[in-house]
Amino acid sequence: MYQVEIFVTYKPSILDPQGEAIQRAVQQMGYSEVQSVRQGKYFQVEIDRSVENLEACVEEICDRLLANVTMESYSYRVKED
Amino acid sequence: MYQVEIFVTYKPSILDPQGEAIQRAVQQMGYSEVQSVRQGKYFQVEIDRSVENLEACVEEICDRLLANVTMESYSYRVKED
Repeated sequence: MYQVEIFVTYKPSILDPQGEAIQRAVQQMGYSEVQSVRQGKYFQVEIDRSVENLEACVEEICDRLLANVTMESYSYRVKED
Repeated sequence: MYQVEIFVTYKPSILDPQGEAIQRAVQQMGYSEVQSVRQGKYFQVEIDRSVENLEACVEEICDRLLANVTMESYSYRVKED
């Protein structure tokens, strides 16, 4: 089985109000050392080894379902068990 | 600067309707090899090196702000640049 970790984040040019709100809350907790917080989505996907083209499968799933490619970018890591 | 990646996911015993909905959509795309999808949250946090105790800082932020520790668990990775 392939264990795929997918990370979807806003492109750098896109404002991240959620991340900014978290940063303010963190600084109110007393952690002024925290310089920035960006929030994104994280997916753990199990894919059977019988898949023909793993990269094409993962990238199509990201492009069509998991990421809004206008505003978001994605990356992924594959672990084999 | 420390670059911290934080991953927040539902505990295994907790149902993940979002992940199940994505899995159904993926299988309708024709990828029957996808066995499961779990969705979580992903944070990129920049923390200045002057922080006294990095682990304590990250774990307090997770415990108090980023994760609902009743239903979610978290892990993190630290990169130094």
